[in-house]
Amino acid sequence: MSARVDEILSWYSTDCPGTRANLYRMLMHGRLGGTGKFVILPVDQGFEHGPARSFAKNDPGYDPDYHYQLAIDAGCNAYAAPLGFIEAGAHKYAGKIPTILKLNNSDSLLSGTDPCPALTGSVDEALRLGCSAIGFTIYPGSISRNTMYEEICALTEEAKAKGLVVVVWSYPRGECLSKAGETSIDVAAYAAQIACQMGAHIVKVKPPTDNIEQDAARKVYEAENIPISTLADRVRHVVQSSFNGKRIVIFSGGAAKGLDEVYAEIQGIADGGGFGSIIGRNSFQRPKADAIEMLHKVMDIHKG
Amino acid sequence: MSARVDEILSWYSTDCPGTRANLYRMLMHGRLGGTGKFVILPVDQGFEHGPARSFAKNDPGYDPDYHYQLAIDAGCNAYAAPLGFIEAGAHKYAGKIPTILKLNNSDSLLSGTDPCPALTGSVDEALRLGCSAIGFTIYPGSISRNTMYEEICALTEEAKAKGLVVVVWSYPRGECLSKAGETSIDVAAYAAQIACQMGAHIVKVKPPTDNIEQDAARKVYEAENIPISTLADRVRHVVQSSFNGKRIVIFSGGAAKGLDEVYAEIQGIADGGGFGSIIGRNSFQRPKADAIEMLHKVMDIHKG
Amino acid sequence: MSARVDEILSWYSTDCPGTRANLYRMLMHGRLGGTGKFVILPVDQGFEHGPARSFAKNDPGYDPDYHYQLAIDAGCNAYAAPLGFIEAGAHKYAGKIPTILKLNNSDSLLSGTDPCPALTGSVDEALRLGCSAIGFTIYPGSISRNTMYEEICALTEEAKAKGLVVVVWSYPRGECLSKAGETSIDVAAYAAQIACQMGAHIVKVKPPTDNIEQDAARKVYEAENIPISTLADRVRHVVQSSFNGKRIVIFSGGAAKGLDEVYAEIQGIADGGGFGSIIGRNSFQRPKADAIEMLHKVMDIHKG
Amino acid sequence: MSARVDEILSWYSTDCPGTRANLYRMLMHGRLGGTGKFVILPVDQGFEHGPARSFAKNDPGYDPDYHYQLAIDAGCNAYAAPLGFIEAGAHKYAGKIPTILKLNNSDSLLSGTDPCPALTGSVDEALRLGCSAIGFTIYPGSISRNTMYEEICALTEEAKAKGLVVVVWSYPRGECLSKAGETSIDVAAYAAQIACQMGAHIVKVKPPTDNIEQDAARKVYEAENIPISTLADRVRHVVQSSFNGKRIVIFSGGAAKGLDEVYAEIQGIADGGGFGSIIGRNSFQRPKADAIEMLHKVMDIHKG
Amino acid sequence: MSARVDEILSWYSTDCPGTRANLYRMLMHGRLGGTGKFVILPVDQGFEHGPARSFAKNDPGYDPDYHYQLAIDAGCNAYAAPLGFIEAGAHKYAGKIPTILKLNNSDSLLSGTDPCPALTGSVDEALRLGCSAIGFTIYPGSISRNTMYEEICALTEEAKAKGLVVVVWSYPRGECLSKAGETSIDVAAYAAQIACQMGAHIVKVKPPTDNIEQDAARKVYEAENIPISTLADRVRHVVQSSFNGKRIVIFSGGAAKGLDEVYAEIQGIADGGGFGSIIGRNSFQRPKADAIEMLHKVMDIHKG
Repeated sequence: MSARVDEILSWYSTDCPGTRANLYRMLMHGRLGGTGKFVILPVDQGFEHGPARSFAKNDPGYDPDYHYQLAIDAGCNAYAAPLGFIEAGAHKYAGKIPTILKLNNSDSLLSGTDPCPALTGSVDEALRLGCSAIGFTIYPGSISRNTMYEEICALTEEAKAKGLVVVVWSYPRGECLSKAGETSIDVAAYAAQIACQMGAHIVKVKPPTDNIEQDAARKVYEAENIPISTLADRVRHVVQSSFNGKRIVIFSGGAAKGLDEVYAEIQGIADGGGFGSIIGRNSFQRPKADAIEMLHKVMDIHKG
Repeated sequence: MSARVDEILSWYSTDCPGTRANLYRMLMHGRLGGTGKFVILPVDQGFEHGPARSFAKNDPGYDPDYHYQLAIDAGCNAYAAPLGFIEAGAHKYAGKIPTILKLNNSDSLLSGTDPCPALTGSVDEALRLGCSAIGFTIYPGSISRNTMYEEICALTEEAKAKGLVVVVWSYPRGECLSKAGETSIDVAAYAAQIACQMGAHIVKVKPPTDNIEQDAARKVYEAENIPISTLADRVRHVVQSSFNGKRIVIFSGGAAKGLDEVYAEIQGIADGGGFGSIIGRNSFQRPKADAIEMLHKVMDIHKG
Repeated sequence: MSARVDEILSWYSTDCPGTRANLYRMLMHGRLGGTGKFVILPVDQGFEHGPARSFAKNDPGYDPDYHYQLAIDAGCNAYAAPLGFIEAGAHKYAGKIPTILKLNNSDSLLSGTDPCPALTGSVDEALRLGCSAIGFTIYPGSISRNTMYEEICALTEEAKAKGLVVVVWSYPRGECLSKAGETSIDVAAYAAQIACQMGAHIVKVKPPTDNIEQDAARKVYEAENIPISTLADRVRHVVQSSFNGKRIVIFSGGAAKGLDEVYAEIQGIADGGGFGSIIGRNSFQRPKADAIEMLHKVMDIHKG
Repeated sequence: MSARVDEILSWYSTDCPGTRANLYRMLMHGRLGGTGKFVILPVDQGFEHGPARSFAKNDPGYDPDYHYQLAIDAGCNAYAAPLGFIEAGAHKYAGKIPTILKLNNSDSLLSGTDPCPALTGSVDEALRLGCSAIGFTIYPGSISRNTMYEEICALTEEAKAKGLVVVVWSYPRGECLSKAGETSIDVAAYAAQIACQMGAHIVKVKPPTDNIEQDAARKVYEAENIPISTLADRVRHVVQSSFNGKRIVIFSGGAAKGLDEVYAEIQGIADGGGFGSIIGRNSFQRPKADAIEMLHKVMDIHKG
Repeated sequence: MSARVDEILSWYSTDCPGTRANLYRMLMHGRLGGTGKFVILPVDQGFEHGPARSFAKNDPGYDPDYHYQLAIDAGCNAYAAPLGFIEAGAHKYAGKIPTILKLNNSDSLLSGTDPCPALTGSVDEALRLGCSAIGFTIYPGSISRNTMYEEICALTEEAKAKGLVVVVWSYPRGECLSKAGETSIDVAAYAAQIACQMGAHIVKVKPPTDNIEQDAARKVYEAENIPISTLADRVRHVVQSSFNGKRIVIFSGGAAKGLDEVYAEIQGIADGGGFGSIIGRNSFQRPKADAIEMLHKVMDIHKG
């Protein structure tokens, strides 16, 4: 019952009604329901970074119930986590918030520049657990990228047949990319494009910097005078790179930081037409009341 | 976020989170959301009785969109129909109302006292179409009952594994039953019990009369002084017969009739502790505004 | 840790450890645990006879939890019921008592002399629900017997591969049998033999009368002077007919009756070497305290 | 029939009754039955280290029966072993103690820093053999970790559908970890978290030291003043890292050592809220009477 | 009809009667029938070493019938070969001697220290060809060991379900092992243990030397004073390492050699309690009459 939501759904007209219904649920749920904007709570850091690094700062976060309740109380559109965290609360919180089952994860016990996460769930598990979407991380630039691309390709085909939404975390990383390059505007826009081309319904990227990694790209950015000086400019470019804004692209919050920094970044994302934020550590590493206050402020900025 | 809904879900603790989430959605949707009560719009009469008998009285009803919109505008908990009607509007109305895909149907072109519907859909179709539930009619008393029982047994196992709700229409009919017997209180209570024992989450029966069909049952009703004189008494008995009220049992509206009759019947169902109504012809054979007014009144009665 | 239980298990040496472990659990559970005797609570009458006929006399019995709790509180070896009743309490009572999932059932809405139950569950459902055994009714004498025999044949093969126990209710019935013939000693012994030959681990028959149905049998009973005048004699003959006592054969309680009648019958079964009783209506149609008192007395008689 | 066991089961509410029943059995079996604590006998060292290194010290241990009998006589909650050892006694000991079939194993004939065990069994074998659980070892930190993660992911999905419990041994090892790092508190807590996120019901880790392996973790442990100086502190942290204590985490006994050392370690585990111990070499490498005396003492410490 | 054979079968109580019957056949066939001892003729050298190296010395051996007839005429318990040899005579010799279908083989055209044989048959082929057992070679120590372990794991599960016996050749080999290490007592005992833990019914190893390969093992052999100085000592240790003698372990004959050497070795095996010999080249590379004379002498030594 929202013109904006109907417009967004019109970009996904090829999808089956099951997938569209789940996308609709995510678009209509929570404080941003109906605005076409998203704030999602992702909690895969326990797997990706380890428990103490993730939860010691605000130790109720060791408990899987905490995150379900935080996402519900803050009015997020959805809650994303690996199998263990989703399953731990799925029975109790069934239907109370759309969930996204992260289907691949990698831990930090093995170093290396070219990540290759393990599959840690399945589309059928997502159905059993009542999830609205599957989540998956690709690392464009990794020597193992094809493994990931082919996995998400197969999972996407299956998820779309079974009525689920596909959310892709697209994080450039690998030995051919400089550290700065991972968040360069050219690379970030490219990463968003790849996820869209793979069939993702929702793409998550990191807020890009004004660095340009690839020479071949730099020539074009300069020749065409693509504005990239402000975050809003860069977000606008990433959104444009996501099928001219016809795919939902949302931005991660990154490492925990001060509130002013958070809000300034969100303002840039909102000004550039980003569809929203996916904010993990900046949410669950704060005391719950502070986290909710912050998330509400973030939602207000996105609502505009 | 409703104590009553949580209580109802507690009776379905064995179900997987996917099924629980879909049941939750149906319990939370529409004007009765959160009350634990249901008003569902079912439109399978085009298949069962033919188009003119079903839709000529209010001819916008020939159009599948009409029923989706009626169910949404009236604030029903869900809309139930065969594959064709569901599919015709599934893309447009995705997510806007929980849907129930009727997986078997029989037409009226073949006469006979012992009905045996055909399978007209599948669980995977329900997933593709974004349905929250499958629907299925059994005809206890039919010489073909075993075919139906074995079909719903297999469909129920599959639906529960894939996170869907199972709604069973239990309509006694067959050459061993008198016409009056089809709605006798003993037979109606028995029909509800059978559906529950087959694993249905939601059972639909017809409002029972105070007739008793079977001699063996009559002895018990008399010996135990089971009250059956008012509709409320009889509904209370059917609810008790549905696992002591731990399965959702709702009542059909039957043939189109006058508003007073409708409301009186609903009042009896509500007084007897019925979980709600599933009202087809009495809804869609009225002009839309009248139908909505009536449905709202019905909902108000159920809300109590 | 019981020589008698080890002796009983020795008769099932061909079975896989999974099946043996479940049989062991049933043999070791409850007040008769370790004695090699059984008292099982079966509650399929809601499906078979209808809810009022089954539960009106003691109306807490409409509630599925009631029967789990009764079986546990009385110290039965196991609880048997159709899918709906088992599922309703399976989550809550998981592991607290061995359960038997009845995989076929027939209702009483269709009259006829030759019953043919419908399949109402599966071996995989029994695994999901944590059951120790599947239950199945065959009606030797019915014109549909082959359907049942072939169904239980396939289910038995699957159950044995997946580590479950097979319990067969063997109830002679059909147009070629007189009413008296259904419980004649020759027919009852024959029914037990058929179930054993089909591969059942546990066989349930009705206590036989001293009637002889078949002329060909009568000649032998007379020529060999097979004692059948007391219930103990007849039970001894049925036990002998069940692989010389090397299959567990238990006896049903039949319609509700006075306590003295019940105890006299149990004494006859015990004296004849029967392995125990499966007592439905005589248990759950009494107030709970009375039922427990009666079941304890029954157990004491079986314990000897 | 234990409030603590019911509380523990409440954390596994998403699981099907079959899995819950098997978990209940393990929680209720043996001398610690009903306390919520575990002592499990694991005997996979014959495969992992070779027969002489495992059994020469107490040579009755070469015999598979010995370990079943030891686990039963000592009153352990369960006995875990590879296919060969489980199968050798499964017929004889069926039902007498819950068993855990180890589904992967690696021998010591191939050196290398990054272990990758072979699959040596299946979920269906566990059903056939009457096991309550599957066991699986992951080596976080190994370059082959993804192979193991994906294997256990698939096995977990299957085991949960078929009603079995999943026990994961999580042993960090690999060329990116120092030898000390394998048991560092940060790595041990991380290893427990990974197993929980993969969907394990029971996690086994080694008792952690106060070493910290990863710099990124060290900063957090220091900043948040996470107490790690005593074993109890560290166990408490590992338990917290296992979904805030909502997953059962038990601790291995390690290489055979003196009794005082064993008891001191167990006391630390108990003081820190560990759920119990899994003690192989320290049990079966002692004469049987000594082993039972030790295990009883260990159980007493865990019982508190 | 042999107490010893019954005792041996008692160790395989978990196996299905089909497998037990095939094991019984092998135990009762030939000159050693009923003694619990085995002499098996294996002829896979044509595949493993090439035809001339295998058969030129006694050229009737090029003919597959030759080996069937030799095994029959010598009164061996069984004959083992790859698909081609078995199939060539299976029609003619059906039922005349138990056969073992070798399901993997590797040729000598590809050099390398870490062997990985190819699958060259299936369990269904073994059924079709009337074999009593499947045979399979694992190479513990090979970097490809996991491939072999996982293959034999799956084949064993299938063979046991279909009533066949599983014979595993366990030959340590690989770049982490010295040449001497392949037959070291510690490694040989370990290889036998691994095969037993994988579920083999019959294990074949090479007669071990008194070398000790692994330092961790050496400490134990010395500390526990495990006698390994004579072949009988070492065989006794390998037998003990095979589930305390509860798995049948037989010894290969190795390269062709003088009769005295052969007999001395057999005497050692017999004195150590080995279950028998599997003698290929020393049989079929001798003229038939000599071979039979030798095999009879070997059998006499085993019979004791």
